[in-house]
Amino acid sequence: MKDVFCRIIDGEIPSSKIYEDDDVLAILDISQTTKGHALVMPKRHYDDFLSCPQETLHKVMDVAQRIGQAEMVVLGAQGINVLTNVGPVAGQSVMHFHVHVIPRYIQGDPGFQITMKGQDVPQIEMQTLAEKIKDEVGE
Amino acid sequence: MKDVFCRIIDGEIPSSKIYEDDDVLAILDISQTTKGHALVMPKRHYDDFLSCPQETLHKVMDVAQRIGQAEMVVLGAQGINVLTNVGPVAGQSVMHFHVHVIPRYIQGDPGFQITMKGQDVPQIEMQTLAEKIKDEVGE
Repeated sequence: MKDVFCRIIDGEIPSSKIYEDDDVLAILDISQTTKGHALVMPKRHYDDFLSCPQETLHKVMDVAQRIGQAEMVVLGAQGINVLTNVGPVAGQSVMHFHVHVIPRYIQGDPGFQITMKGQDVPQIEMQTLAEKIKDEVGE
Repeated sequence: MKDVFCRIIDGEIPSSKIYEDDDVLAILDISQTTKGHALVMPKRHYDDFLSCPQETLHKVMDVAQRIGQAEMVVLGAQGINVLTNVGPVAGQSVMHFHVHVIPRYIQGDPGFQITMKGQDVPQIEMQTLAEKIKDEVGE
Protein backbone atom coordinates (compact mmCIF):
# COMPACT_ATOMS: atom_id res chain seq x y z
CA MET A 1 0.00 0.00 0.00
CA LYS A 2 1.19 3.52 -0.80
CA ASP A 3 2.22 5.73 2.11
CA VAL A 4 0.33 8.99 2.61
CA PHE A 5 3.12 11.10 1.06
CA CYS A 6 3.16 8.97 -2.11
CA ARG A 7 -0.60 9.53 -2.28
CA ILE A 8 -0.17 13.30 -1.87
CA ILE A 9 2.56 13.30 -4.54
CA ASP A 10 0.28 11.37 -6.88
CA GLY A 11 -2.54 13.85 -6.27
CA GLU A 12 -4.83 11.36 -4.54
CA ILE A 13 -4.93 13.43 -1.34
CA PRO A 14 -5.00 17.23 -1.27
CA SER A 15 -2.24 19.23 0.42
CA SER A 16 -1.09 22.81 0.94
CA LYS A 17 1.84 22.97 -1.47
CA ILE A 18 4.60 25.51 -1.00
CA TYR A 19 7.13 24.22 -3.53
CA GLU A 20 7.17 21.68 -6.32
CA ASP A 21 9.56 20.67 -9.07
CA ASP A 22 10.23 17.40 -10.90
CA ASP A 23 11.99 15.82 -7.94
CA VAL A 24 10.89 17.55 -4.75
CA LEU A 25 7.59 18.48 -3.12
CA ALA A 26 7.14 20.73 -0.08
CA ILE A 27 3.86 21.09 1.77
CA LEU A 28 2.59 22.49 5.03
CA ASP A 29 2.36 19.78 7.66
CA ILE A 30 -1.33 19.13 8.25
CA SER A 31 -0.47 19.26 11.94
CA GLN A 32 1.12 22.70 12.47
CA THR A 33 3.39 22.48 15.53
CA THR A 34 4.29 26.10 14.80
CA LYS A 35 2.94 28.42 12.13
CA GLY A 36 4.54 27.47 8.83
CA HIS A 37 5.68 23.96 9.84
CA ALA A 38 6.67 22.50 6.46
CA LEU A 39 7.65 19.08 5.11
CA VAL A 40 10.09 18.65 2.24
CA MET A 41 10.23 15.27 0.49
CA PRO A 42 11.53 13.60 -2.65
CA LYS A 43 8.78 12.63 -5.08
CA ARG A 44 10.39 9.27 -5.62
CA HIS A 45 9.89 6.98 -2.67
CA TYR A 46 12.77 6.40 -0.27
CA ASP A 47 12.02 5.12 3.20
CA ASP A 48 14.20 7.59 5.04
CA PHE A 49 17.22 9.91 5.17
CA LEU A 50 19.66 7.01 5.34
CA SER A 51 18.38 5.32 2.19
CA CYS A 52 18.05 8.46 0.04
CA PRO A 53 20.61 8.76 -2.80
CA GLN A 54 22.99 11.72 -2.48
CA GLU A 55 21.76 13.67 -5.50
CA THR A 56 18.18 13.55 -4.25
CA LEU A 57 19.26 14.37 -0.70
CA HIS A 58 20.99 17.49 -1.99
CA LYS A 59 17.85 18.64 -3.80
CA VAL A 60 15.70 18.08 -0.72
CA MET A 61 18.12 19.99 1.52
CA ASP A 62 18.34 22.88 -0.95
CA VAL A 63 14.56 23.25 -0.86
CA ALA A 64 14.52 22.99 2.94
CA GLN A 65 17.05 25.83 3.05
CA ARG A 66 15.03 27.99 0.67
CA ILE A 67 11.86 27.44 2.69
CA GLY A 68 13.66 28.29 5.91
CA GLN A 69 15.00 31.48 4.36
CA ALA A 70 11.55 32.41 3.04
CA GLU A 71 9.87 31.78 6.38
CA MET A 72 12.32 34.04 8.19
CA VAL A 73 11.26 36.80 5.79
CA VAL A 74 7.51 36.39 5.35
CA LEU A 75 6.51 34.90 8.70
CA GLY A 76 8.86 36.88 10.90
CA ALA A 77 10.35 33.69 12.33
CA GLN A 78 13.33 34.27 14.60
CA GLY A 79 14.81 30.82 14.11
CA ILE A 80 14.23 27.45 12.46
CA ASN A 81 14.62 23.80 13.38
CA VAL A 82 15.40 21.45 10.52
CA LEU A 83 14.81 17.84 11.46
CA THR A 84 14.50 14.44 9.92
CA ASN A 85 13.68 11.28 11.85
CA VAL A 86 14.78 7.80 10.85
CA GLY A 87 12.74 4.95 12.26
CA PRO A 88 9.76 4.79 14.60
CA VAL A 89 12.09 4.87 17.62
CA ALA A 90 13.20 8.33 16.46
CA GLY A 91 9.64 9.54 15.85
CA GLN A 92 9.31 8.82 12.11
CA SER A 93 5.61 8.22 11.54
CA VAL A 94 5.45 8.15 7.72
CA MET A 95 8.02 5.84 6.14
CA HIS A 96 8.75 8.17 3.21
CA PHE A 97 11.81 10.38 3.65
CA HIS A 98 10.82 13.90 4.70
CA VAL A 99 12.50 16.86 6.33
CA HIS A 100 10.65 19.04 8.82
CA VAL A 101 11.24 22.78 8.57
CA ILE A 102 9.87 24.30 11.76
CA PRO A 103 9.91 28.09 12.16
CA ARG A 104 10.40 29.32 15.71
CA TYR A 105 8.98 32.49 17.14
CA ILE A 106 9.45 32.69 20.87
CA GLN A 107 11.34 30.83 23.54
CA GLY A 108 9.20 27.78 24.17
CA ASP A 109 6.82 27.66 21.19
CA PRO A 110 4.30 25.38 22.91
CA GLY A 111 3.84 23.03 19.93
CA PHE A 112 7.48 22.05 19.49
CA GLN A 113 10.13 21.26 22.05
CA ILE A 114 13.52 19.63 21.88
CA THR A 115 15.01 18.47 25.15
CA MET A 116 18.70 17.55 25.21
CA LYS A 117 20.20 16.32 28.45
CA GLY A 118 23.76 15.33 27.75
CA GLN A 119 26.03 13.12 29.79
CA ASP A 120 29.73 13.73 30.26
CA VAL A 121 31.40 10.51 29.22
CA PRO A 122 34.99 9.77 30.38
CA GLN A 123 37.57 10.77 27.75
CA ILE A 124 38.87 7.25 27.27
CA GLU A 125 35.37 5.98 26.50
CA MET A 126 34.79 8.87 24.08
CA GLN A 127 37.98 7.99 22.20
CA THR A 128 37.05 4.30 21.98
CA LEU A 129 33.58 5.21 20.73
CA ALA A 130 34.98 7.71 18.21
CA GLU A 131 37.43 5.14 16.81
CA LYS A 132 34.68 2.57 16.41
CA ILE A 133 32.48 4.95 14.41
CA LYS A 134 35.44 6.36 12.46
CA ASP A 135 36.48 2.89 11.33
CA GLU A 136 33.01 2.24 9.93
CA VAL A 137 32.57 5.67 8.29
CA GLY A 138 35.91 5.34 6.52
CA GLU A 139 37.74 8.00 4.53
CA MET B 1 36.50 35.98 18.95
CA LYS B 2 36.48 32.52 17.39
CA ASP B 3 33.59 30.22 18.25
CA VAL B 4 34.40 26.90 19.92
CA PHE B 5 33.99 24.92 16.69
CA CYS B 6 36.44 27.16 14.82
CA ARG B 7 38.86 26.55 17.70
CA ILE B 8 38.34 22.76 17.45
CA ILE B 9 38.81 22.92 13.66
CA ASP B 10 42.03 24.90 14.14
CA GLY B 11 43.30 22.33 16.66
CA GLU B 12 43.25 24.71 19.61
CA ILE B 13 40.80 22.53 21.54
CA PRO B 14 40.87 18.71 21.50
CA SER B 15 37.90 16.71 20.25
CA SER B 16 36.86 13.13 19.52
CA LYS B 17 37.00 13.11 15.72
CA ILE B 18 35.01 10.61 13.71
CA TYR B 19 35.45 12.04 10.20
CA GLU B 20 37.60 14.70 8.59
CA ASP B 21 38.31 15.87 5.07
CA ASP B 22 39.31 19.23 3.55
CA ASP B 23 35.85 20.73 4.00
CA VAL B 24 34.02 18.85 6.74
CA LEU B 25 34.74 17.78 10.32
CA ALA B 26 32.63 15.41 12.43
CA ILE B 27 33.17 14.90 16.15
CA LEU B 28 31.37 13.36 19.07
CA ASP B 29 29.36 15.97 20.95
CA ILE B 30 31.13 16.50 24.27
CA SER B 31 27.67 16.25 25.81
CA GLN B 32 26.34 12.83 24.75
CA THR B 33 22.54 12.98 24.78
CA THR B 34 22.63 9.41 23.49
CA LYS B 35 25.61 7.15 22.85
CA GLY B 36 27.27 8.28 19.63
CA HIS B 37 25.70 11.77 19.45
CA ALA B 38 27.76 13.37 16.69
CA LEU B 39 28.17 16.86 15.23
CA VAL B 40 28.97 17.46 11.57
CA MET B 41 30.22 20.91 10.52
CA PRO B 42 31.89 22.73 7.66
CA LYS B 43 35.47 23.75 8.43
CA ARG B 44 34.85 27.15 6.93
CA HIS B 45 32.76 29.32 9.20
CA TYR B 46 29.10 29.88 8.40
CA ASP B 47 26.77 30.99 11.14
CA ASP B 48 24.03 28.49 10.43
CA PHE B 49 22.14 26.22 8.01
CA LEU B 50 20.47 29.17 6.29
CA SER B 51 23.73 30.95 5.46
CA CYS B 52 25.69 27.90 4.30
CA PRO B 53 26.40 27.74 0.54
CA GLN B 54 24.77 24.83 -1.28
CA GLU B 55 27.95 22.97 -2.21
CA THR B 56 29.13 22.97 1.41
CA LEU B 57 25.67 22.04 2.66
CA HIS B 58 25.70 19.00 0.39
CA LYS B 59 29.06 17.86 1.74
CA VAL B 60 27.91 18.26 5.33
CA MET B 61 24.69 16.30 4.70
CA ASP B 62 26.58 13.52 2.91
CA VAL B 63 28.82 13.07 5.95
CA ALA B 64 25.81 13.18 8.29
CA GLN B 65 24.25 10.40 6.24
CA ARG B 66 27.41 8.28 6.30
CA ILE B 67 27.71 8.69 10.07
CA GLY B 68 24.08 7.75 10.57
CA GLN B 69 24.56 4.66 8.42
CA ALA B 70 27.72 3.72 10.34
CA GLU B 71 26.06 4.17 13.73
CA MET B 72 23.18 1.89 12.77
CA VAL B 73 25.79 -0.80 12.07
CA VAL B 74 28.39 -0.44 14.80
CA LEU B 75 26.31 0.90 17.67
CA GLY B 76 23.17 -1.11 17.04
CA ALA B 77 21.08 2.05 16.86
CA GLN B 78 17.47 1.44 15.84
CA GLY B 79 16.91 4.93 14.51
CA ILE B 80 18.50 8.35 14.10
CA ASN B 81 17.47 11.96 14.50
CA VAL B 82 19.22 14.44 12.24
CA LEU B 83 18.76 17.99 13.43
CA THR B 84 20.11 21.46 12.87
CA ASN B 85 19.00 24.51 14.82
CA VAL B 86 19.06 28.06 13.47
CA GLY B 87 19.12 30.82 16.05
CA PRO B 88 19.06 30.82 19.85
CA VAL B 89 15.24 30.67 19.81
CA ALA B 90 15.57 27.27 18.10
CA GLY B 91 18.23 26.02 20.51
CA GLN B 92 21.39 26.89 18.54
CA SER B 93 24.08 27.43 21.16
CA VAL B 94 27.20 27.65 18.98
CA MET B 95 26.87 30.06 16.08
CA HIS B 96 28.79 27.88 13.63
CA PHE B 97 26.64 25.70 11.37
CA HIS B 98 26.47 22.12 12.66
CA VAL B 99 24.21 19.15 12.19
CA HIS B 100 23.41 16.83 15.09
CA VAL B 101 23.31 13.10 14.32
CA ILE B 102 21.65 11.43 17.28
CA PRO B 103 21.37 7.64 17.33
CA ARG B 104 18.27 6.28 19.04
CA TYR B 105 18.05 3.04 20.92
CA ILE B 106 14.80 2.70 22.79
CA GLN B 107 11.49 4.50 22.97
CA GLY B 108 12.24 7.48 25.16
CA ASP B 109 16.04 7.65 25.27
CA PRO B 110 16.16 9.82 28.41
CA GLY B 111 18.77 12.27 27.07
CA PHE B 112 16.89 13.34 23.94
CA GLN B 113 13.23 14.07 23.41
CA ILE B 114 11.27 15.77 20.68
CA THR B 115 7.75 16.85 21.51
CA MET B 116 5.45 17.82 18.65
CA LYS B 117 1.94 18.96 19.46
CA GLY B 118 0.33 20.04 16.25
CA GLN B 119 -2.71 22.20 15.77
CA ASP B 120 -5.30 21.64 13.10
CA VAL B 121 -5.58 24.93 11.25
CA PRO B 122 -8.68 25.69 9.13
CA GLN B 123 -8.12 24.84 5.45
CA ILE B 124 -8.60 28.42 4.27
CA GLU B 125 -5.88 29.64 6.64
CA MET B 126 -3.56 26.84 5.51
CA GLN B 127 -4.01 27.85 1.87
CA THR B 128 -3.34 31.52 2.62
CA LEU B 129 -0.24 30.61 4.59
CA ALA B 130 0.96 28.23 1.87
CA GLU B 131 0.55 30.89 -0.83
CA LYS B 132 2.49 33.44 1.21
CA ILE B 133 5.46 31.09 1.66
CA LYS B 134 5.24 29.82 -1.92
CA ASP B 135 5.45 33.35 -3.32
CA GLU B 136 8.64 33.99 -1.37
CA VAL B 137 10.29 30.62 -2.13
CA GLY B 138 9.65 31.08 -5.86
CA GLU B 139 10.19 28.52 -8.60
